[in-house]
Amino acid sequence: MPVFTYTTTVRLHLTDAAGILFFGNYFVLAHDAYEAFVTASGFSFRSILEHESFMVPIVHAEGDYKQPLRVSDQITIDVGLDRLGESSYALFYHLKNQEGELVAALKTVHVVVDKHTFQKLPLSPTLREALEKLT
Amino acid sequence: MPVFTYTTTVRLHLTDAAGILFFGNYFVLAHDAYEAFVTASGFSFRSILEHESFMVPIVHAEGDYKQPLRVSDQITIDVGLDRLGESSYALFYHLKNQEGELVAALKTVHVVVDKHTFQKLPLSPTLREALEKLT
Amino acid sequence: MPVFTYTTTVRLHLTDAAGILFFGNYFVLAHDAYEAFVTASGFSFRSILEHESFMVPIVHAEGDYKQPLRVSDQITIDVGLDRLGESSYALFYHLKNQEGELVAALKTVHVVVDKHTFQKLPLSPTLREALEKLT
Amino acid sequence: MPVFTYTTTVRLHLTDAAGILFFGNYFVLAHDAYEAFVTASGFSFRSILEHESFMVPIVHAEGDYKQPLRVSDQITIDVGLDRLGESSYALFYHLKNQEGELVAALKTVHVVVDKHTFQKLPLSPTLREALEKLT
Repeated sequence: MPVFTYTTTVRLHLTDAAGILFFGNYFVLAHDAYEAFVTASGFSFRSILEHESFMVPIVHAEGDYKQPLRVSDQITIDVGLDRLGESSYALFYHLKNQEGELVAALKTVHVVVDKHTFQKLPLSPTLREALEKLT
Repeated sequence: MPVFTYTTTVRLHLTDAAGILFFGNYFVLAHDAYEAFVTASGFSFRSILEHESFMVPIVHAEGDYKQPLRVSDQITIDVGLDRLGESSYALFYHLKNQEGELVAALKTVHVVVDKHTFQKLPLSPTLREALEKLT
Repeated sequence: MPVFTYTTTVRLHLTDAAGILFFGNYFVLAHDAYEAFVTASGFSFRSILEHESFMVPIVHAEGDYKQPLRVSDQITIDVGLDRLGESSYALFYHLKNQEGELVAALKTVHVVVDKHTFQKLPLSPTLREALEKLT
Repeated sequence: MPVFTYTTTVRLHLTDAAGILFFGNYFVLAHDAYEAFVTASGFSFRSILEHESFMVPIVHAEGDYKQPLRVSDQITIDVGLDRLGESSYALFYHLKNQEGELVAALKTVHVVVDKHTFQKLPLSPTLREALEKLT
C-alpha cells in the first residue's frame, strides 16, 4: 500500500516528567507528517489559511500506543489513506522506532467546510487526486 | 452520573494559525483535568513519578470535535469513568464552552504497569476507590 | 508596586524528561498571565486578532531561572510594568512557588504595529490606561 | 566563525491564532537545534538524563524577534558559542528564513550542576571539547 513516509526525532519539549513522549504529542508528530505530505503534494498550508474560503478541520482523532518513546528516538511515520468520502477523508499514521517496531498507530478524520458557515463542501479534485496517491 | 468538573481557559499558545484550538491540544486540556482530579483525590503525580514502582501510561486516546474553540474561551470539562478493569481504566471528558454547548468528547485508557518491566499490575485499592467516585 | 497576580499549576505536558518545567514553557506561563491581565482589563484577544487593524507582537523576551519547577507545583505570577513608551511597553513577571520563593523572573517587550505593514503605531489611550494601573 | 547548522520547518502547532510562530516557541526551535548539536557531538540526552549524576539546566534565556515566522516556513538555525566558563556556557542561535534573512537571535546560558544537590560542577573535558568546536 503506497504511503507517504516522514522521519523525525523526539525532541525534549515533547517528552514529560514520566521520561516519555507525552501522549498528546503523538498527535503533534502525526500532524507534522500530515503537513509534510500536504506540502509535498503541492499545497500550501499558509495559502489555504490566508486565502481560501474553506478550511479542513479535524473532527475525530484516535491513537493506540504500543511502546513508549524517549528523547532523541528516531521515528518513521507512514501516512496512508484510510477512507475517502465526498467531503471528508481519514488518514492513518504508523509510527515506528529506530528498530522498526510499530510504537503507535493513529488516525485523523478531516472534513472540508466553508471557513465562515462551517457547512460541508466537496473535496477539490486536486486534493482528491493527492489523497488517492496514498492508496 | 457523578463527575469531576474542571474549568479552564483556552490560552493563545494552544491555538494555531487556523485561529482555533489545535486538535492535539484538546488532549492537553483533558489531561490537565485528569491531573486536577488525581490531585483532588489525594494523589501526587510528582510522588508517583519519583518514588513509586509503577506508572500508568495511556494506551489509547480518542476525541470527537463538534465545534472549534478560540483564544480566551472558557471551558468546563466533566471527567467521568467509562470503564474500570483489573489493571486498567477508561475516562471520558466532556468539554463544554461558555454557552454550555458540548464542543468535544474525549476518552483516554490507562493501564497500570511496572515502571521497569512494563508488565501489567493490579490497580491499587486507593486508586480504585477514587475512580469509583466518578460513577 | 501594584501588580496583576495570576495563579496556576505546572501541568505534566509542560515538564520534560529531565523531570522539570521545560525552560521555554516559563514563557508560556508568563503569557498565560499576560492574557489573564489583558482580559481582566476589558480587552478581548480574540476581538483584537479578528477585528483590529493592529497587532502587538513581542520583540524581545528574557528569563532568569533560579529554581526548577515540577509537575503539580502551584505558582503565583506577579505581572508588572517595566517600561511604557509611545508605541511599546515592557512587562516583568515574577514567578513564585508554593513556598513563596522566587523561582524565575521574566520580561517581555511588546510593540504595537499595523497588522499589514508592520509599521509602529501609538498605543491606544485605553491600553495605556490599563498598563498604567500596573505601576 | 564555525557554527553548527540545523534546518527545520515551522509546524502548525507552533503557530498561534495571530497567524505567526508563538514567541515562546522560538526557544523550542533553538533547543531542537541544541539537541541536534549535542547528538552530533556524540552525547546522548537520554543517557545523560537517565544515568549521569549531573544535569545541565538553563539558567538564562533571551530572544530578539525581528520578523514573524509562519506555518511551513523553512528555517536555518546557526548555533554558536557565546561564552565558555568553568562550569557554564552560553550559546547563541541565529534563525534565518528561506530568504536568508535573520528573523530572530536567541541565547541560552547553561550550568552543569549535581542532579541532586544542584551544586555547580566543572564541565567535563569531552563536553568542553565539543563546545570549543563552535568557536
